[in-house]
This record gives sequence, C-alpha cells and structure tokens, in this order.
Amino acid sequence: MSETRKGMLLVISGPSGTGKGTIIAELMKADKSLVFSVSATTRQPRPGEVDGVHYHFMTVEKYNELVAQDAFVEHAQVHGNYYGTLRSEVYSRLEKGENVVLDIDVQGALNVIASEKEKVSIFILPPSLKVLRERLTGRGTETPEAIERRMNNAVWELSQKDHYEYKVINDDLDACVRTVQAIIEAEKHSAAYYSVDVPQE
Amino acid sequence: MSETRKGMLLVISGPSGTGKGTIIAELMKADKSLVFSVSATTRQPRPGEVDGVHYHFMTVEKYNELVAQDAFVEHAQVHGNYYGTLRSEVYSRLEKGENVVLDIDVQGALNVIASEKEKVSIFILPPSLKVLRERLTGRGTETPEAIERRMNNAVWELSQKDHYEYKVINDDLDACVRTVQAIIEAEKHSAAYYSVDVPQE
Repeated sequence: MSETRKGMLLVISGPSGTGKGTIIAELMKADKSLVFSVSATTRQPRPGEVDGVHYHFMTVEKYNELVAQDAFVEHAQVHGNYYGTLRSEVYSRLEKGENVVLDIDVQGALNVIASEKEKVSIFILPPSLKVLRERLTGRGTETPEAIERRMNNAVWELSQKDHYEYKVINDDLDACVRTVQAIIEAEKHSAAYYSVDVPQE
Repeated sequence: MSETRKGMLLVISGPSGTGKGTIIAELMKADKSLVFSVSATTRQPRPGEVDGVHYHFMTVEKYNELVAQDAFVEHAQVHGNYYGTLRSEVYSRLEKGENVVLDIDVQGALNVIASEKEKVSIFILPPSLKVLRERLTGRGTETPEAIERRMNNAVWELSQKDHYEYKVINDDLDACVRTVQAIIEAEKHSAAYYSVDVPQE
C-alpha cells in the first residue's frame, strides 16, 4: 500500500508557566517523527538552557538584522524581550516530511495561525490562575515584577484560546501529554497531511 | 474550572467489508459518551441483526412515507436497497451533549458532510481490494453477484476518501480502533466542541 505523509507544523502555545516545555519534552521522547524548532530570543538564558538547543540566544542587533533579512516566520516582543521563529527551522524540514514543533508565545502563535494555511494549533491552559502563579513563583528564576507582568499578560493570552484548534488543560501532566499525543495521532490521519492509495493486491 | 462539551456528530464510513461495524462496536464498549444512531433500511436483516439495534428494518412503503415527512438527515439508495439516518436519532441527542455515531455508506456520508457544519468524518479503508473481496466472501451472506456489485461500488467509494477529514486503514483491528479513539479524544478537545474557562482559584 502506498502511504505518504506531509510534514505537520505543530504550534504549541499558552501562557508562561503552563508547562509547554515539559509537555514538548515528553512528546519528543516518545515520537521520533517530531523535530523541535529552536526559537530565536534576545532574553537571557535561564539556568540549564543551552544555546542552539533551547533557544538561539542573540543580541538585539543580530535579531534586528534577521528581521531586516525577512528570516522569521513570525516574531514578536513578549515581556520586554524579542522572540522569533526562523524560516530555516521550519520549511525545509516540513518538505522532508518531518513534523515541526513550535513552542511559541500567544502573540507569535496567532501570527502563525493567521499566516500558515496548514498547521495544527494547541493551546495549553493552566487549571487556574492560582496554579499558574504558583508555577511561575516555583521556577525561582523570575523577579516579583516579572511574575506580575507574566500574570497580567496571561489574562490577555487566555482570552485568545478560541483562535486555536485544540485546547488542553495541564492539570495532570501525564493526562495532558496523552491528550496532545492523541491530537498528533489524529492529525497524522488528517486528509491535510496524509495520502493513501488502496492497491489491488 | 468550568468545562462544557457539545455533542459531536461522528460519521464513520467506508466501503462494505472494511469492518466499520466491528470498529464501532469496539469504540462503544470503551467510551460511554458515544451513542449509536440506528439507521433505517429496506434491506433484509443479516443473521444476528436485530431490529431497532442494528437497523430499523422497514418496508419500502414505510421508508417512502418517512422521506415524504422529511424525517431523514440523509437518505440514499445503495446496492439496490434504501438507507437513511433519522433526524430523531441525531439532533436531540447532540443537544444533550451526547456524541452520536453514524455508521453510513459513502453516499450518505457525503450528504452529511455537505449539509452538517459541525461533524467529524472518518473514512475506513481496507488495506487492499484483495482483502476487501476476501472479507465480503468470508461473510457468507452475499451472493456472488452481490459481492461483484459491492466490489464495483468500492472502487467509486474509495475515490471519495479525500472528502473526509480523517482516513484510517483497517489492516490491524486493534491499531485501527486505537487511531479512531485518538481522533475522538482529539476532537473532544477541539474548539468546535469544547468550552473551558480558567478560574482565579
């Protein structure tokens, strides 16, 4: 039987502190068809973050140069720093049939949703604002002012959830990961990505 | 947290002999949110088929009366018999939040896909035409002429597969059921069916 699958552009988004990064790490461990698009950012690395693995860390000058070169699929300013998705991380891999995972903020995701015809968009929600605040505080990497800024932004971000195709609450990590895996499995069988012919024999 | 789910209209279709009935029986055993829409038909019951459970068996006169009353969501003639989906099996249940499963032929499914704005459509494919013929022959309930008629129709039906949202090959029953379950789980989180609010606490 002849089956072909096109690469899928998978946009995983939601407010800071909803656990997107952990969810994506679990997904990628279990599904080797997924490749991660490393975003560009001008923010400082958090402890444990590696340049080229978690982000392409860069200066504002370098970032502006890339913007001028039209090197980004989307770019946005979030919490006072710049972020962007590099074209070089996305299109050539989709053409090879790889499923490209974008971990991006809500502004960037809305840009991708508006501009890319074929994509799968998933919004990860915290079970409550109280839990979101606890998670941001628990990181221990943010100043109280940064936490307030993220909480204020989260209220706006949550109001954008219905622009996404799918919504998943991250109350229990394992259950949340299983649901996102079901979405990916479903989309692998979506007519948009999947061609199949039924042979005689 | 406040979550509400609308009922989902789940159209499962494909050529005769692809195993739709078995797949649906497995789905319904495992997921109590699913209810089965019992189709009307003028064909004779096969051994083991129960009126009101597998089909509403009826005369051509009764069927025509229901057509005249606009009692069907869709109706079509297939392999020389009449089939239809009764409105009474569908809409009131969707309003109650139940997920209604339609096991219908490709003509009927194309009518539902064209007329219903919100639905989830899944096409079940045989791994090959040879396997399809073996399954139809293995039933032991069809005359050689009926098998030829179904095989000829299958070629046209398979050409309609890209009108469906999802395509799943029934090569291995367990794997096929797991994929359809993933599609249902994904769609339960689709913005079309799922509302959620994130509370303060």
